[in-house]
Amino acid sequence: MNEPTRADAVADPASPYALRKLASIALDALADGAAARGGPLPAGGPEQVAARTRALCTPVLPEEGVGAADALYDVARAAAEGAADPSDPHCVAHLHCPPLAVAAAADLVASALNPSMDSWDQAPAAAVIEAEVTAALARLVYPHHPAPDAVITSGGTESNLVALLLGRERARATGARTVQVLVGANAHHSVRRAAWMLGLPTPLVVDCPGGRMSPAALDRALVECAGPALVVATAGTTDEGLIDPLPEIAEVARFHGAELHVDAAYGGPLLFSDTLAPRLAGIEHAVSVTYDLHKLGWQPVAAGVLAVADAQVLEPLALTADYLNADDDTEAGLPDLLGRSIRTSRRPDVLKIATTLRALGRRGLGATVEHCVRTAADVARAVDAHPALRRRPGDVGISTVLFRPAAADALPDADGDELVAAVRRDLLAEGRAVLGRATVADGDGRQRLWLKVTLLHPSTTGDDLAPLLDLIAEQAERLAPASMAA
Amino acid sequence: MNEPTRADAVADPASPYALRKLASIALDALADGAAARGGPLPAGGPEQVAARTRALCTPVLPEEGVGAADALYDVARAAAEGAADPSDPHCVAHLHCPPLAVAAAADLVASALNPSMDSWDQAPAAAVIEAEVTAALARLVYPHHPAPDAVITSGGTESNLVALLLGRERARATGARTVQVLVGANAHHSVRRAAWMLGLPTPLVVDCPGGRMSPAALDRALVECAGPALVVATAGTTDEGLIDPLPEIAEVARFHGAELHVDAAYGGPLLFSDTLAPRLAGIEHAVSVTYDLHKLGWQPVAAGVLAVADAQVLEPLALTADYLNADDDTEAGLPDLLGRSIRTSRRPDVLKIATTLRALGRRGLGATVEHCVRTAADVARAVDAHPALRRRPGDVGISTVLFRPAAADALPDADGDELVAAVRRDLLAEGRAVLGRATVADGDGRQRLWLKVTLLHPSTTGDDLAPLLDLIAEQAERLAPASMAA
Repeated sequence: MNEPTRADAVADPASPYALRKLASIALDALADGAAARGGPLPAGGPEQVAARTRALCTPVLPEEGVGAADALYDVARAAAEGAADPSDPHCVAHLHCPPLAVAAAADLVASALNPSMDSWDQAPAAAVIEAEVTAALARLVYPHHPAPDAVITSGGTESNLVALLLGRERARATGARTVQVLVGANAHHSVRRAAWMLGLPTPLVVDCPGGRMSPAALDRALVECAGPALVVATAGTTDEGLIDPLPEIAEVARFHGAELHVDAAYGGPLLFSDTLAPRLAGIEHAVSVTYDLHKLGWQPVAAGVLAVADAQVLEPLALTADYLNADDDTEAGLPDLLGRSIRTSRRPDVLKIATTLRALGRRGLGATVEHCVRTAADVARAVDAHPALRRRPGDVGISTVLFRPAAADALPDADGDELVAAVRRDLLAEGRAVLGRATVADGDGRQRLWLKVTLLHPSTTGDDLAPLLDLIAEQAERLAPASMAA
Repeated sequence: MNEPTRADAVADPASPYALRKLASIALDALADGAAARGGPLPAGGPEQVAARTRALCTPVLPEEGVGAADALYDVARAAAEGAADPSDPHCVAHLHCPPLAVAAAADLVASALNPSMDSWDQAPAAAVIEAEVTAALARLVYPHHPAPDAVITSGGTESNLVALLLGRERARATGARTVQVLVGANAHHSVRRAAWMLGLPTPLVVDCPGGRMSPAALDRALVECAGPALVVATAGTTDEGLIDPLPEIAEVARFHGAELHVDAAYGGPLLFSDTLAPRLAGIEHAVSVTYDLHKLGWQPVAAGVLAVADAQVLEPLALTADYLNADDDTEAGLPDLLGRSIRTSRRPDVLKIATTLRALGRRGLGATVEHCVRTAADVARAVDAHPALRRRPGDVGISTVLFRPAAADALPDADGDELVAAVRRDLLAEGRAVLGRATVADGDGRQRLWLKVTLLHPSTTGDDLAPLLDLIAEQAERLAPASMAA
């Protein structure tokens, strides 16, 4: 292989020569790194991973460069060898999906062309593709609304931030000073963080017995609210994958004249499936809906969506900057993109989304969501049948299963939790499994720590996960005496 | 070529087979699209581009998918054929750089591995690489500070937002209710937008005679400020590429006990160059500095940086979420990444940055910045020598040159501006050039509309741009009579 020279590194990025050769080096490094890792994540824990990573690719800013080919191989190899690989069946901690190869390849197009989504003259076609995609994604949530719309975000956190910002501006437009957010105890931290950033009053927290927002508790909380209120419900909680009772919540909100935003970062893509969409019944009553396609949706981060019931809801984002959308240009027919985001320069994350939607179609996406839901049910059954594991009583979330080693139940509560945490950390340090954790009420009402598996893999089955359950049981057995002694 | 099947599309993304084959299809489509476009942007204007794009790749969400290979080719081809190509010498409107091929290839690694930067167990090695890169990028701004730090952002807009957020929290920590931002009339719109989002008082606008913030005007404005104040200076204005007088501004701010943030989104990378870094003297007095590597830096969007003089400045971003950084995990040695961003799920934009820094080294990056600055000087000289063009009197900005057709000067002011706008729009609609625009004072003090060229190409020279100047002159000559008649 000829070494790409520095000239290639700074050459026309559309040049098939330079990019094809360098992409090939990157793919070689990915394969070599994955082979060297040999598992769902690197063994050895944080210190060893750091040392190995530094050995492979530092200094990151030498005085004299090492050249494009070597630098690319070094960094790609280090990143791959030290990756937590969501395509491994033992990597199931988070809402962190294995990206589809077709989406990753489409993302290369975004990087090579580098359209920036803040003006037409930086992204003529990408802007059109974005408009088509956001229209389709808005219709998915609001099929019966006359003029729904959506914007692409960096993820649920940004979607929720923008939703609260828009809620604040609607409140201000009525002459109020601010908006009071009401949020379930089960909500993602980003809602409270957004309220903090935006200078809103601290959100009122609504009880969530059993992990779902209580409409009765919401009703009581809204009675206390004087001014404009925005209720934030969740469709797919981070800990359990549960969906708040949206029709009842919408009704309570409506009764009190409050608005509803739904954080469906996790659950939104159920809408692709005819059989699963009914679980989100009522979502169309929300003024805005967060959902991510880098969870269920199998996109590389970032692929966030904020859908709104009516395009006018987005108006507070409108902005004129003479260099990007001067009035005379807009009047002359140049599309104005600036009001589509709180960012200015913006990567066209929409290209990979468009490619995936078109590749799989609504049915293909729906079938893949159904696969994940089915896998979770299979895993729940396998846990129930496993002698050394106990599943958390109650419903299985969208594709999330909580359980703990029975050995932990044999210990006093604090020691049991400690055992659960140690099982997870040791499997992580040994490079054998990436498991999640959640502190959630047990059947007796007491808060206990659980292991969490989040099933997002588009092809892994329950059978593929049986070895993981055994591994957890064995690890618990090995650790239990030490933990009991501690 | 064998058609990748749907199974490939949802296969293990680390599988060299699926991704290599699909990446190859994407690169084919990029080449075909660029050939079909045949210029810096597609001809025909917004409506024709939209029609052609829709013909190539819609519907984006069919009921039944078209398959991975076809969908990828369709979307990539449409995006490429309808791109504004920053690697074309005639595409010089914005701070929109041609990305290095090596950076685009590294970005493929980010997409394929999909580490998410919000917890160690989603990004073991990527987190280490980010720590190395942010340390190096912080030292670039603050070489003599004991503990500078930096975070990676989605761009200057997010960097400025976080800078103002941190400023607000520092003010609150002193018992104040908020912070008063003071900003030059030359500042990027994102500063005012951030103040709006964060619920801060409307920023006070400081005069910028000649395009640079006046220290005397700042002094007068600060006299009027009662509470905590944050001065936002600019190093590399969007319209002109000018740098505020940072040492004097820092001194005025210090005298009044105000803090300084510098938006060096454009100018920050001058620090890579020994000869250009002195232009940013005084920047080290800022508590925080915004800079982008997707402008000078040749990264695909996004590659933003916010550097801070001391790591403690970032403390208000600290956040605990039990599922990502539970206290017992952090105590057990698992690195806590959550306080490094206002986002949660976060793409490892740092991989392409690390690769580029290591590929080119500080000297290589500095030499490439110097090339752009030199090209701007060459273009300015060529404009001065051109009989049909007039350069805006005054200094050339970092790599930005403003000028207008002499034909516009022959018209009444409004008609002249109209001619300038029409030249730009017509070249855009004809697919022949992507030029910027700016309304800035002329030598006689009157605001006039100028054409703007922003030179960011790592290898284009002044000679390569000579045909563009002729093209502009010809277009103005062709349009001038019609404009006079209008």
